[in-house]
Amino acid sequence: MKLIRFGNAGEEKAGVHIDGVNYDASFLNSDYDEKFFERGGIAELEAYVKAHQSELTPIPEGSRLGSPIARPSKIVCIGLNYADHARETNAPIPPEPVIFMKSSTSLVGPNDNIVIPKNSVKTDWEVELAVVIGKKASYVEEAEAADYIAGYVLHNDVSEREFQLERNGTWDKGKGCDTFAPMGPYLVTPDEVADPDNLRLWLTVNGQKMQDGNTANFIFKVPFVIAYVSRFMTLLPGDVISTGTPAGVGLGFKPPVYLKPGDVVELGIDGLGTSRQELVAYTKA
Amino acid sequence: MKLIRFGNAGEEKAGVHIDGVNYDASFLNSDYDEKFFERGGIAELEAYVKAHQSELTPIPEGSRLGSPIARPSKIVCIGLNYADHARETNAPIPPEPVIFMKSSTSLVGPNDNIVIPKNSVKTDWEVELAVVIGKKASYVEEAEAADYIAGYVLHNDVSEREFQLERNGTWDKGKGCDTFAPMGPYLVTPDEVADPDNLRLWLTVNGQKMQDGNTANFIFKVPFVIAYVSRFMTLLPGDVISTGTPAGVGLGFKPPVYLKPGDVVELGIDGLGTSRQELVAYTKA
Repeated sequence: MKLIRFGNAGEEKAGVHIDGVNYDASFLNSDYDEKFFERGGIAELEAYVKAHQSELTPIPEGSRLGSPIARPSKIVCIGLNYADHARETNAPIPPEPVIFMKSSTSLVGPNDNIVIPKNSVKTDWEVELAVVIGKKASYVEEAEAADYIAGYVLHNDVSEREFQLERNGTWDKGKGCDTFAPMGPYLVTPDEVADPDNLRLWLTVNGQKMQDGNTANFIFKVPFVIAYVSRFMTLLPGDVISTGTPAGVGLGFKPPVYLKPGDVVELGIDGLGTSRQELVAYTKA
Repeated sequence: MKLIRFGNAGEEKAGVHIDGVNYDASFLNSDYDEKFFERGGIAELEAYVKAHQSELTPIPEGSRLGSPIARPSKIVCIGLNYADHARETNAPIPPEPVIFMKSSTSLVGPNDNIVIPKNSVKTDWEVELAVVIGKKASYVEEAEAADYIAGYVLHNDVSEREFQLERNGTWDKGKGCDTFAPMGPYLVTPDEVADPDNLRLWLTVNGQKMQDGNTANFIFKVPFVIAYVSRFMTLLPGDVISTGTPAGVGLGFKPPVYLKPGDVVELGIDGLGTSRQELVAYTKA
């Protein structure tokens, strides 16, 4: 199954993506949120769709896609999880996962604009595989971690490098600005992802390939990461763990390259679709 | 006004504290959550209570108190915001606020047990003044920051120092364990707090005074902190900013002193009440 959400920001409705077409699934009367994942809503959706596939209505033409999941209780991120990315940022290979958090207010749709924050000079990109948690996870064993996955989603872990690294605080300062977490197009359930630890992922800026990696190069693989994070905090249904980015971010260039208004970022992961964001300057709402 | 929540964990009901008595306010049909603060629920509650004070029902005897606010979208914390605490932890005085985040799953009631995480050896205490945000805040001016405050609450920013400082990651790893954010007893509205930048706050362990500070010693005062955080992420109604702890944490002792099962932590802030937590070892639920 591929879950989508569509409609205006803040008013998204549930949908499903089948064979290239997005269908309305608002008959569920449920958003893709903590309660949905907790009650096994994906199985419910799957059963309904199987029984009623011919009756499904495509979403209105030109509909905006939202993040395929509603605002989660938290977005946990793993830093420096690809050796090539650690090297390019002059960071040592971590002996255990680096954890940081992204404010959930940064979540937007896959093709929404990225707003460059006021006074930002170092807004950067990071294509990442994000994992959505399907059930409450605390002190999970690595061997059982797969049972806790609701699905996978493409994520651009947008990062302001000056805020993150030079402004005296943890990385959180440069990770949670509004629009800094474009997710989607869809949440793909595990049955459609043969091996999350072997997926090609790429990102271009203005058509130029910047990142071209493979999750086979993870330092810490998905089951280990879930088990590890669950030792430090309880993960709730619908929570997100973003697994880190491969080499090729703007910070890694000599000299570094950052995003400016008008730039277009496109990214994708095998089987998880693609997304596209245009950069815009901050203007007071 | 002093807002409380009471009842079993996860089933808390709204209440108010008036002249030493806790009353049921579940007539509101509303939890103290994002929607409540967004719609100006405090004014609504105040009007009702004024008109019906004689009809209010005390909460059942022996009721557990929950956190006075429902799970927020985020708990943002300021690190090293008292010069004496920065010194005791051998950290330099920060030139601008240190920001980190606490997983919202760490939130518990003011008198709930603190669970020492599995494999934890350095669980520590931190009495803090926490600010609850009343309306959506993005790029707020310091001079207007007071308008964005719903109230103040006593918070024990429980911290696992090994997870926080020695386990290769940002501070978030040692801050968000379950039960690591006892809040309450009540949310006190700003009209009852003469000066949030001049409040005595203290903490004892097994009756022995460990922290005895005053928010007058803040490096960064409340309005500045709100304005500052709102430059890096949008704050939503019901979100929490915890403003840092004064000297006297376990990490600052030579040698350091950490919490063990059976220990009792008590803390308080002028006008914001007191709380009491007993430490227990982790056991599988």
